[in-house]
Amino acid sequence: MPGTPAEEYAPASLYTEVQQFYARQMSLIEGRGADPDAWADTFTEDAVVESAADEGPDVGREAIRASVRAGVAHIAAQGWDFRHWFGMLDVRPQHDGSLRTRYYALAMATERGGALEIRGSLLCRDELVRGPGGRGWLVRHRALVPDGHTGA
Amino acid sequence: MPGTPAEEYAPASLYTEVQQFYARQMSLIEGRGADPDAWADTFTEDAVVESAADEGPDVGREAIRASVRAGVAHIAAQGWDFRHWFGMLDVRPQHDGSLRTRYYALAMATERGGALEIRGSLLCRDELVRGPGGRGWLVRHRALVPDGHTGA
Amino acid sequence: MPGTPAEEYAPASLYTEVQQFYARQMSLIEGRGADPDAWADTFTEDAVVESAADEGPDVGREAIRASVRAGVAHIAAQGWDFRHWFGMLDVRPQHDGSLRTRYYALAMATERGGALEIRGSLLCRDELVRGPGGRGWLVRHRALVPDGHTGA
Repeated sequence: MPGTPAEEYAPASLYTEVQQFYARQMSLIEGRGADPDAWADTFTEDAVVESAADEGPDVGREAIRASVRAGVAHIAAQGWDFRHWFGMLDVRPQHDGSLRTRYYALAMATERGGALEIRGSLLCRDELVRGPGGRGWLVRHRALVPDGHTGA
Repeated sequence: MPGTPAEEYAPASLYTEVQQFYARQMSLIEGRGADPDAWADTFTEDAVVESAADEGPDVGREAIRASVRAGVAHIAAQGWDFRHWFGMLDVRPQHDGSLRTRYYALAMATERGGALEIRGSLLCRDELVRGPGGRGWLVRHRALVPDGHTGA
Repeated sequence: MPGTPAEEYAPASLYTEVQQFYARQMSLIEGRGADPDAWADTFTEDAVVESAADEGPDVGREAIRASVRAGVAHIAAQGWDFRHWFGMLDVRPQHDGSLRTRYYALAMATERGGALEIRGSLLCRDELVRGPGGRGWLVRHRALVPDGHTGA
C-alpha cells in the first residue's frame, strides 16, 4: 500500500460492500440513538484498534467496547452531533479472502445550536474479514494515524 | 435504518447509480450555470422535501421548484460558489423497486476571492423511485436533519 | 456535463475503478513517503494539467513532474500532512474507451502538532485513458477550477 494505480482493482461488488459496511458501522456511534455495543460487535473477538496518538492499543472486542462506550458517553454529555466521514477508499483483496483497506477519515462535531467544527483528519488502515456465515464484514485490525501527530 | 452492517448490501450497480445520480443532481444547482428547474425535475410530481430546521415541508414538485429557485438566486446574488458533498451513503432496496438511502451532506460556500466556509453538516434520508421509462431515478421524499438543530 | 441525472450511468466496474484510481493516485503525493515521480507517471506523456488559478498549463508529463516535485518539496519543508479528498464523482464513458470525469476536490493540511485547515475546494474535470497493456488508467487532461476564483 499504496502501490501503483495500475495494480489490480477490487471488484465493484467488494468495493461497494466496503463502502456500505463503513457507512453502517459508523452510523452506529453517531446521533441520538448511538449504540456502542452494536459498534463493538462489528469487530472480531480478537480485534485490535490502535492509534498513533494513544498510549497502547485496545486489544480484543471487550477492550474496544469499553473504549467506545466511554467515547459515546462523553459525546452525549457534551450534546454534540458527531460525524465520521470516510473517503479516498482503497480496497485490496488478500489471498485468504480478507481485505486490506486504506482510507481517510474526517471527525466532525456540531454543538446543539452551534457551528460545525472539523476536529481532524486521520489516515486509517483496516483488515476486514467475513462475518459469521460468510455474511457481512468484521474489522480484525484498525490502525489510525491522526494527521499532524508528532510521534515517531 | 441504520440496521446492522451484516444486513444485505445493495448490489454494486444500484449503489454506483445512486452515487452518480447524486453527483449529477447536485451539480445542477451549483456553479455559474446552475439550473434550478432541471434540479426540480429530479423530484416526482408529488415529492416532499422536509427539513427539521424549517417550518413546514415543500409538498409537490412546484413548491420544491419555487424554493430552489429562490435559494439559487440568493446564492448567485451573494457571488458564492456553493457545493454540496454527500458521503457515507447507505442504500436499501425495497420490495417495490424503490430505494431508501441515508447519507451525510456538507454544505460549503466560497466567496469570490474568499476562503472556503463549511456551513454545516446534515443527515439526509431519501426515497428514490425509477424515472420515466424505468430510466434514472427521481426523489419522492427527502428528509434533512441539520446537525446541531435544537428542535424535537 | 453535467447533463441530466437520467442519462446513462457508468457501469459499476468502471465507476469503482475510477474511485480506486483516484485514491491510489493522490496517496502518492501525500504523507511522509510521498513519491512525486510515481504520481507524474499516472499521466500520459502528452498530458495537460491546467488550473484557472495559474498562468499557463503544464504541458507534457515532464512539466507535470517538475511542478509536482516542487509542490511536494514545499509541503515537506512546511512539515504539513497534506490530503486531497475527491467527492461527488461523475464518470462518462466515451465511444473511444476513454472516460470523462467530473468531481470536487478538497485540499487540506495539518501542521505537525497543529489543527486541520481546509485550504479550498475545486471543481475538477479529467480525461482518463487506459494505461499500457490496457491495465489501469492514466490522466490525459486535468482541468481545475478553484471555487471563489476571480478569473474569467
